[in-house]
Amino acid sequence: MTASQGPSPSRSRGGETNARSDQPARAAVVEAAIQCILERGLYRASSNAIAERAGVTWGAIQHHFGSREALMLAVLEEGNDRLRRLLAAAEIGGGTVEERVAAYLGVLDAYYGSREYLAFMQVLLTLAHDPRTSEQTLATMQRITGSVDADLHRLAGEVLAGTGADEATLGPLLFHALRGMAMSHVMISANPPAYGAGRAAEFATQNELLVQAIGLLLAPRTGRFES
Amino acid sequence: MTASQGPSPSRSRGGETNARSDQPARAAVVEAAIQCILERGLYRASSNAIAERAGVTWGAIQHHFGSREALMLAVLEEGNDRLRRLLAAAEIGGGTVEERVAAYLGVLDAYYGSREYLAFMQVLLTLAHDPRTSEQTLATMQRITGSVDADLHRLAGEVLAGTGADEATLGPLLFHALRGMAMSHVMISANPPAYGAGRAAEFATQNELLVQAIGLLLAPRTGRFES
Repeated sequence: MTASQGPSPSRSRGGETNARSDQPARAAVVEAAIQCILERGLYRASSNAIAERAGVTWGAIQHHFGSREALMLAVLEEGNDRLRRLLAAAEIGGGTVEERVAAYLGVLDAYYGSREYLAFMQVLLTLAHDPRTSEQTLATMQRITGSVDADLHRLAGEVLAGTGADEATLGPLLFHALRGMAMSHVMISANPPAYGAGRAAEFATQNELLVQAIGLLLAPRTGRFES
Repeated sequence: MTASQGPSPSRSRGGETNARSDQPARAAVVEAAIQCILERGLYRASSNAIAERAGVTWGAIQHHFGSREALMLAVLEEGNDRLRRLLAAAEIGGGTVEERVAAYLGVLDAYYGSREYLAFMQVLLTLAHDPRTSEQTLATMQRITGSVDADLHRLAGEVLAGTGADEATLGPLLFHALRGMAMSHVMISANPPAYGAGRAAEFATQNELLVQAIGLLLAPRTGRFES
């Protein structure tokens, strides 16, 4: 297997610049860790369980990552990378304000409404408060914030174009309201199966109504945010 | 230490009806577990760390709960109990639609926007997918849904009173949009300190704008939801 066949080695990772040929193996282990966390929760996603799922030995994982903490930091980076790539590729053009809000919700929902986000969330919650990893976690979160902020501003600007709305105030509203909706929905899927099943239609209606509500807030005819 | 000095023994718990005198000790252990999860993440909140923080032996914890899994189920139940009590005590009366939406957001934010919710979230994510606990977790979640649904409907009805809005459709929108906002905000506090600091004022503005948006959606003058 060559590097080009595996998941794309999007960028060199800290301290691993000489290990590009290891990227597919690294990526497979990170993916195994994510699936393991989703299947049994972070607490039960032990080093052994992850190695077993990846079909490698824990020794091989140690070779790539050094420690379970370092592997979990790689999981967090993978999540952040997915968000970064998603936002970088997103474009919101044309249509009514309401259509553009809906499009932005779709973008955020693809990440924050995914089951994988539940794994990244667990990892962040744990790493951020563990004295052994909090410093590196902060550095990672600051790096990713730096790399997604520009795209978030761009997308908010595209949504708000022509409304006269103040992007500095309305951009963060869009982000938190739309991301929150996605998070609230995906938390239901965290419940055991059967509890959260069959909600897709309800979620679609709720998304539509939130988009309508924000559309009304942004409609230039309200005059609220005209410059 | 007497019972009155400990955390209040809120209620009898399932299967422990003969152990009421143990309630303060149980509650103190559950509280220690919550704080331990918040300080170091669920993965590092080991049985020993929780026992140390509670100032008791792991043997004493085993006496009350039997296993770490059972203790974590008790943490989940404590979270659900807090939500249940909060909703049961809440009343949204009078004022404009916007004021009532804001009041409902305040109620949901007190739970879903609290740091403790981040601990309950981690526990739910782990227990729900652990084969050893998923069945009990489902039972717990179904029990709590049964006990909070009536209050959620009542509160949504109070918010929507006089708008002619369809509670079956708009009630869930209110819940997910408002809870989501609280969740999105509290996730920022999950980042290492310094990263999420100083956001309170921004959050207040975002809450206000979301309330305005939903208020516009619900305003009877739009005619959308008149019966």
